[in-house]
Amino acid sequence: MVEIKNDRLLRALLRQPVDVTPVWIMRQAGRYLPEYRAVREQAGDFKTLCTTPELACEVTLQPLRRFRLDAAILFSDILTIPDAMGLGLYFTEGEGPQFKYPVRTAQDVEQLFVPDPERELRYVMEAVRLIRRELNGEVPLIGFAGSPWTLATYMVEGGGSKEFSRVKRLMFDQPPLMHRMLDTLARAVTAYLNAQVAAGAQVLMLFDTWGGVLSPRDYREFSLRYMEQIIRHLTREREGRRVPVILFTKNGGQWLEVMAESGAEALGIDWTTSLHDARVRVGSRVALQGNMDPSLLYASPERIRREVATILASFGHGLGHVFNLGHGIQQHVDPDQVTVLVEAVHELSRGYHSA
Amino acid sequence: MVEIKNDRLLRALLRQPVDVTPVWIMRQAGRYLPEYRAVREQAGDFKTLCTTPELACEVTLQPLRRFRLDAAILFSDILTIPDAMGLGLYFTEGEGPQFKYPVRTAQDVEQLFVPDPERELRYVMEAVRLIRRELNGEVPLIGFAGSPWTLATYMVEGGGSKEFSRVKRLMFDQPPLMHRMLDTLARAVTAYLNAQVAAGAQVLMLFDTWGGVLSPRDYREFSLRYMEQIIRHLTREREGRRVPVILFTKNGGQWLEVMAESGAEALGIDWTTSLHDARVRVGSRVALQGNMDPSLLYASPERIRREVATILASFGHGLGHVFNLGHGIQQHVDPDQVTVLVEAVHELSRGYHSA
Repeated sequence: MVEIKNDRLLRALLRQPVDVTPVWIMRQAGRYLPEYRAVREQAGDFKTLCTTPELACEVTLQPLRRFRLDAAILFSDILTIPDAMGLGLYFTEGEGPQFKYPVRTAQDVEQLFVPDPERELRYVMEAVRLIRRELNGEVPLIGFAGSPWTLATYMVEGGGSKEFSRVKRLMFDQPPLMHRMLDTLARAVTAYLNAQVAAGAQVLMLFDTWGGVLSPRDYREFSLRYMEQIIRHLTREREGRRVPVILFTKNGGQWLEVMAESGAEALGIDWTTSLHDARVRVGSRVALQGNMDPSLLYASPERIRREVATILASFGHGLGHVFNLGHGIQQHVDPDQVTVLVEAVHELSRGYHSA
Repeated sequence: MVEIKNDRLLRALLRQPVDVTPVWIMRQAGRYLPEYRAVREQAGDFKTLCTTPELACEVTLQPLRRFRLDAAILFSDILTIPDAMGLGLYFTEGEGPQFKYPVRTAQDVEQLFVPDPERELRYVMEAVRLIRRELNGEVPLIGFAGSPWTLATYMVEGGGSKEFSRVKRLMFDQPPLMHRMLDTLARAVTAYLNAQVAAGAQVLMLFDTWGGVLSPRDYREFSLRYMEQIIRHLTREREGRRVPVILFTKNGGQWLEVMAESGAEALGIDWTTSLHDARVRVGSRVALQGNMDPSLLYASPERIRREVATILASFGHGLGHVFNLGHGIQQHVDPDQVTVLVEAVHELSRGYHSA
């Protein structure tokens, strides 16, 4: 078993005792950090930053130098997989991600394939290996991927969307074709995540950013089902340790009970559900990660500390809480506010673990 | 008591027996209709369309000429109130609504006032009177307003928003100031809706488009509370009939139990909650309105009919269902699809009301 100096995250995800509640922040390597913006500028564009292992490694480590975070998360983009499938990912300033060749026809779907992670996505695996080496066992490294449904929304819409009308039309009118696409994506995500584990990732997270735009029925059939398929086929032991999986469906607060049956060790919770209620609903089946409103990082330090206290109290005593925001950190946040948050979580959570 | 030829909507909202399930569509007077686009072009811009009673009346009536809808809804914008407060509402093509003078300081909040509906918002009341005259008792007329929280988001952000960071900062750091603003807005909305009833509106709907971006605690304190305040002060009897109130919080599916205690007769339900579950949770306290995914109108007619059947079955037998989409109709929908929907609701719901 490889030693991890700070294994709070792994222990909390497995609902084992910890000294204080672990904390990390979605998108912790991001634009709110001036040192990130400097590297990004040096890279020239976002895609170069993602595809250059040395730069991806550097920005992954940046937040750990500033804050006493309990985990690193691979710096990458959820759309690396469709890009590797040949859809031509590109980024326009202020526009978000776009695809040169969106998926529109049955033929487009048939041409999708499962990329070889060590070939088409080698730059990601190199970044994982590099980060693990640089981390030197300080904290665990989280690998991640987008959920098949979430990837499909971008691939069919050709980029971000507000109404998801194209992808939903495909889903409603041609469910077999949609399922075919999602199955290919599920196999691609599985291979990609397993390769991340082989390269050194110690925790895995599935980001289902857009599962929450579906009806309960469609969520189960077109999003959750494929995340379950992925989880069943993941490498779950590595370096003598369990590799825990975190499942996060943004706006999925209504479906926590079925998500808790997915096989994941933990569920990400956004701020529209209280941790108290979430815990009552999922019982001891899974750990919970969350759930501060990211906008609270614009409030005063006192207000942030008060919110941290409220969230810790909402989860209460007991095992299985990882502190995080309910969504990615926003770009205009002052980094000093993150220091306030991280210190508050460690300081104020001590009493919940002393028993 | 003024005669209404088709009073299905009123009866269903009051949980009284009906022959078939009533149906109307959020944003039914909108850009998907070529005749709407013609009037909009004639008006020159969206604001002129809103502020010219004859044109607002015309577009309100357009969908009723095409479809056998069970209600008319006043054509207007939720931002008429802040505009009447002097914030300078304007629309830029493709940009959504914006304010020339957003609310940013304590002084800005103090300068907000309750507009006199028959003076600063007279154009809305004239439209209501005109529509009632033209409707000639065929179907009831729904009046509406945005919720105080929803109005506040636009007023503080200066327009639409993705992260709501300014308005949330105000809420987190200066709750007394936020409450002051929301109280003024609640009084303005109350006066506005009561004036709509005096002018002829027979049903009222509160659109809480952005309540769903709050935590459960903040939703109750900053959104629901002010909608309750409004409902308590509304005119509830007019022309010998009850004036039912529909409360709709988009993405509010997790909070239906507290919404059912608001005093509203009915709750709008989006498609992320099943009507079956919603009914189990709210019991017979309120009627339910909803909840088809608007994107289904891009699917085939057969698929639309199947979905209508599924939604009717999800609500099941019993009183108090108004069929609607779970959000406004999208602009690229083919109007013939709406015919399919409306006919399907009436035809397929008959069996649920024959007992």
